[in-house]
Amino acid sequence: MTAMAPILLNNMVTVPDQSEYSKHEVFHTADQVHVKNPHLDTMEEDILYHLNLGTKTHNLPEMFGEIKFVCVGGSANRMKSFAQFIHQELDLPGSIDDITDICEGTDRYSMYKVGPVLSISHGMGCPSISIMLHELIKLVHHARCHNVVLFRIGTSGGVGLAPGTVVVTDKAVDCFFRPQFEQVVLGKVIIRSTELDVGVSKELLQCSSELNNFPTVIGNTMCTHDFYEGQGRLDGALCSFSTEDKLEYLRKAYNSGVRNIEMESTVFGAMCHACGIKAAVICVTLLNRFDGDQISTPHDVLEEYQQRPQVLLAHFIKKRLGLIT
Amino acid sequence: MTAMAPILLNNMVTVPDQSEYSKHEVFHTADQVHVKNPHLDTMEEDILYHLNLGTKTHNLPEMFGEIKFVCVGGSANRMKSFAQFIHQELDLPGSIDDITDICEGTDRYSMYKVGPVLSISHGMGCPSISIMLHELIKLVHHARCHNVVLFRIGTSGGVGLAPGTVVVTDKAVDCFFRPQFEQVVLGKVIIRSTELDVGVSKELLQCSSELNNFPTVIGNTMCTHDFYEGQGRLDGALCSFSTEDKLEYLRKAYNSGVRNIEMESTVFGAMCHACGIKAAVICVTLLNRFDGDQISTPHDVLEEYQQRPQVLLAHFIKKRLGLIT
Repeated sequence: MTAMAPILLNNMVTVPDQSEYSKHEVFHTADQVHVKNPHLDTMEEDILYHLNLGTKTHNLPEMFGEIKFVCVGGSANRMKSFAQFIHQELDLPGSIDDITDICEGTDRYSMYKVGPVLSISHGMGCPSISIMLHELIKLVHHARCHNVVLFRIGTSGGVGLAPGTVVVTDKAVDCFFRPQFEQVVLGKVIIRSTELDVGVSKELLQCSSELNNFPTVIGNTMCTHDFYEGQGRLDGALCSFSTEDKLEYLRKAYNSGVRNIEMESTVFGAMCHACGIKAAVICVTLLNRFDGDQISTPHDVLEEYQQRPQVLLAHFIKKRLGLIT
Repeated sequence: MTAMAPILLNNMVTVPDQSEYSKHEVFHTADQVHVKNPHLDTMEEDILYHLNLGTKTHNLPEMFGEIKFVCVGGSANRMKSFAQFIHQELDLPGSIDDITDICEGTDRYSMYKVGPVLSISHGMGCPSISIMLHELIKLVHHARCHNVVLFRIGTSGGVGLAPGTVVVTDKAVDCFFRPQFEQVVLGKVIIRSTELDVGVSKELLQCSSELNNFPTVIGNTMCTHDFYEGQGRLDGALCSFSTEDKLEYLRKAYNSGVRNIEMESTVFGAMCHACGIKAAVICVTLLNRFDGDQISTPHDVLEEYQQRPQVLLAHFIKKRLGLIT
């Protein structure tokens, strides 16, 4: 297993024995990811099943220790495109054809590493992204990454915005407009805050005004567990409400500060917050839900829309790395 | 767009104009799929966005009219393997290399058609499968399929069963062991029954006893929205409970009739029940959760386990088609 050449100074000098390093309290400094699970230290091996990685089969600190920016998104193809795009933007050595799927032994998720950037797909919906996040957060912990920032880049339905608008999430809210995620633990419901990092979001908005090539707003993002009935769509296999009912719900959402709707932001915020990871959500809107439900925009226009969160995030990463000022 | 040659008698003689056929009440006979959405008939076009299909761009009755068995499962690779396997089992003409992904324009889901069998991936978790089911049920409706049976074949954690046991689901229950699914519609929670088809499940058990090559049981299947905390795993990035807490929850589940745990069965049951589709869930258990959380079984053993639901379902399909008695 070979790791790509680091482009950032890697502050680890030696790689301790795999079975021992997680016990070294010295590594648990403030800028590290906090797994909140006392059982992990007692495990001889940790198999990250859905990523097809493990602490005994892979040298995770060597493979991933230099990671600073973790970018997740629903579609495997899009996350591969993002890896290729960021490779070009960071002007890294080597060919983009050499960027291969680290999780290729499984088709659950795809993962690409480009210098200090990790790009991973998460599928659709909170359960799908939460499996990936559990294993990703453990990965970042086992690899002893420092100062990691986590981004979700995605697509969404807009609420009162022109299609193509990028929304940087202020609060990730549930279908009742509450900034919380309900996690069931052993049959008991636990409420978690979905708080994202205010500083990172402001920095992203600043990047957007510097780029000045597409509209970007900050607003609340509503996260639902269903694309059709849960988002008030009239075009699912099941629909028991009227157009007016739908519009009233969207108006309520808008009045509460919601500007877009997607399906992962609350659990993403909740897990990052619980583990002390700075995180942000950047989604482009593919349509204005006040105008319709179906996505009928031509393919090439949708493609360009989907690149916008990538362009914004690439600018952020380049600024953080000092490649642009 | 070419359709594969039907191997069953197709009872449609003419294909009415796309924009008109859904209004023909004569087609809404008892053995057809019931979409429960009055808005659909008023739509000029229906774009099945996540399947990359549509009523204006594709002749859905011609492409899918002969479908009798719809098989869904989480992994795209596995659903491709199943399509190839059923092609061999049904002794269909042509090469398995010609079986291509009908949804290849999108990476959200993969879909393969083999004679009267449709094999589709659905990703992980209720939200992911529900998007696919909305569009699949509309597809089956637009294609005017008759007497369709829907199966989920998947993997699961076993509760008090030897790894490799196949569970045919009696009741699909939530994390509180209730046979229901909570669907949010416009910010209101609606409770739906997850009832599956008793007759189909009995037929599957009969098939299993005829095959007699792996253990098969009928039992309740618990569907959670999270793989780690929601299923009582001690090895996630977050874990706030003890081994004893975990075992107590699993014992409660077992005592209520739960024999396996996965992440899609409740919404699968709920949507099929609401639309009048006969449905069954067949999952193999990869481990016994009383013995551990991590899936450390060798790859080739897991591969063989994952074929078991496919073997059982193939036997069912061959019997239904009169290929074996």
